[in-house]
Amino acid sequence: MKIALDAFGGDNAPDEVIKGAVSAIADFAAGGSPVEIILTGDENTIKSRISALGVSDKNITIVNADGVIKIEDDPMSIRTTKKESSMGKAFALVASGEVDAFVSAGSTAALVVGATMLVGRMKGVKRPALAPLMPGINGFYMLLDGGANMECRADMLAQFGVMGSIFMQKIMGVENPRVGLLNVGSEREKGRELEMKAYEALQNAPVNFVGNVEGRDPIANLCDVAVTDGFTGNIYLKAVEGMGGFMKASLREIFSANAGSKVGYLLSKKGVKALSKKTDYREVGGSPLLGIKKPVIKAHGSSDERAFKNAIGQAINFCGAIGEIEAGIAALKEEN
Amino acid sequence: MKIALDAFGGDNAPDEVIKGAVSAIADFAAGGSPVEIILTGDENTIKSRISALGVSDKNITIVNADGVIKIEDDPMSIRTTKKESSMGKAFALVASGEVDAFVSAGSTAALVVGATMLVGRMKGVKRPALAPLMPGINGFYMLLDGGANMECRADMLAQFGVMGSIFMQKIMGVENPRVGLLNVGSEREKGRELEMKAYEALQNAPVNFVGNVEGRDPIANLCDVAVTDGFTGNIYLKAVEGMGGFMKASLREIFSANAGSKVGYLLSKKGVKALSKKTDYREVGGSPLLGIKKPVIKAHGSSDERAFKNAIGQAINFCGAIGEIEAGIAALKEEN
Repeated sequence: MKIALDAFGGDNAPDEVIKGAVSAIADFAAGGSPVEIILTGDENTIKSRISALGVSDKNITIVNADGVIKIEDDPMSIRTTKKESSMGKAFALVASGEVDAFVSAGSTAALVVGATMLVGRMKGVKRPALAPLMPGINGFYMLLDGGANMECRADMLAQFGVMGSIFMQKIMGVENPRVGLLNVGSEREKGRELEMKAYEALQNAPVNFVGNVEGRDPIANLCDVAVTDGFTGNIYLKAVEGMGGFMKASLREIFSANAGSKVGYLLSKKGVKALSKKTDYREVGGSPLLGIKKPVIKAHGSSDERAFKNAIGQAINFCGAIGEIEAGIAALKEEN
Repeated sequence: MKIALDAFGGDNAPDEVIKGAVSAIADFAAGGSPVEIILTGDENTIKSRISALGVSDKNITIVNADGVIKIEDDPMSIRTTKKESSMGKAFALVASGEVDAFVSAGSTAALVVGATMLVGRMKGVKRPALAPLMPGINGFYMLLDGGANMECRADMLAQFGVMGSIFMQKIMGVENPRVGLLNVGSEREKGRELEMKAYEALQNAPVNFVGNVEGRDPIANLCDVAVTDGFTGNIYLKAVEGMGGFMKASLREIFSANAGSKVGYLLSKKGVKALSKKTDYREVGGSPLLGIKKPVIKAHGSSDERAFKNAIGQAINFCGAIGEIEAGIAALKEEN
């Protein structure tokens, strides 16, 4: 199996990307065969960093690229002026079939455009969705769409439910995932016209639809998949991230206040670490882009070695679920 | 000054409502005169609870009512079958001018319907907005609309910005409040058609518009007023509440794990209490309903004595800002 990895995506590129690749090659295998990583980016820099880091380049291939597409760049430039960038080159490899999957911590907008236009949507999929795994009190749930599509129709939301459900089952090992529709109340008639129509579409979809869920419900793990449009999803996910950051900052403040509270930290360290692990996106990898012909994973911008390694692991597993997602979309079509 | 208080609204009614009223009468004065509270609800029950609690009924008047409008009741019934309920009777007192303001911890939906239809919108106001005060890292900010209007137009969002700004300035003492538009990115062209139009409308509004804010920004206090439609606002506020609950549950878990961590709690108690106060809605009262002719405050469903007291204090201050909000709405109209 071959995975393309954007060596210059994210805040900690290229060092943590390289270390993550090495770590993944050491730890993972795909069907008994080793995993090969194709790093895209400036070849000389990558070579010199591999050497400086003193890591092995076994099963790593470098594909030279010119520059990086930045968050502030027009995402459409991935097809034009940024075609030769580290992300652009990787998309060419996915599109041509030279690699099986792609992981990048670079610009989300460019990744969505590139995946949609250069790799292409799965048959029958109306819109691909960005599907982050979010920390809940008792484990991770999937939110989609996390921001790929600002305006959605009900049939798109039903597809999101099907794709998210299959991902959670096949990759995350959740039995019979509970799919909820993000809404302002639990009653069927709540929300906008979009939610009322999506409620019906999800009821007729081949998923375990548990009805409407409110903003606090996914966090309490009342569903495994929370479906919404990309505008609402993006606001929701950043609110959750913001409050998560508030939580961590408050803990730091509490424990660093004085000599006594520092001892307090030492006595409570185990619990603090457990909480930290529970809310750590690095544990689960990145955000898959669901509805694209090949696995494309958006790694968090601040990913480190472990996050990149786990995103690569996620991409490996994702390869085995593409066929099932396609089948799920076809089954949804038949039911509607 | 006379404030109507729904004695049977909320999870802790009527005892905490009564105690909150007594506490407010003891602590607050409006322009040198005492505050009078009109409790609405079953007269016999209220009388017997006042007696059982052993509190003074000085400056308390009871207006007898029949039953309560519940969360599961049709909110429109506040005008028909539930007209005689504790909330319905209070609305009659506001509408007739017998009281100056109204506080209730009862059904939000019924409160919005009653305020809009029985008390009425301010001149020029297109839609009233529910405006909760939300905990940020360095203090509270206002979110509106928190759920009164599922579908909004840009001109409504501009009005929300004006009303929220005046409230934060006059009642919360924020100098030159920063008004942000909740969006998926900071760049001007981000979001849906609604956000693009609202951006322009807010730029032309008589407020200190700081542009788009993302979901995590209000929590980091990058604005004092976060403007959005009621669907997005409700999802956002419940996500924030959910993560706040996650935070508190995690702290409890950390500190109760074992004998050592219990000592850890004792050593860190001051910081934990400071955090708890920082995120405590009871400190600020309730959620004002902005754009109604008279002050109407939605107190949190789980309000206790202190929360009811502070919501009454907020209602008293709110009375002095109604004229300014009306003037702000008129000024906005002139500029557009």
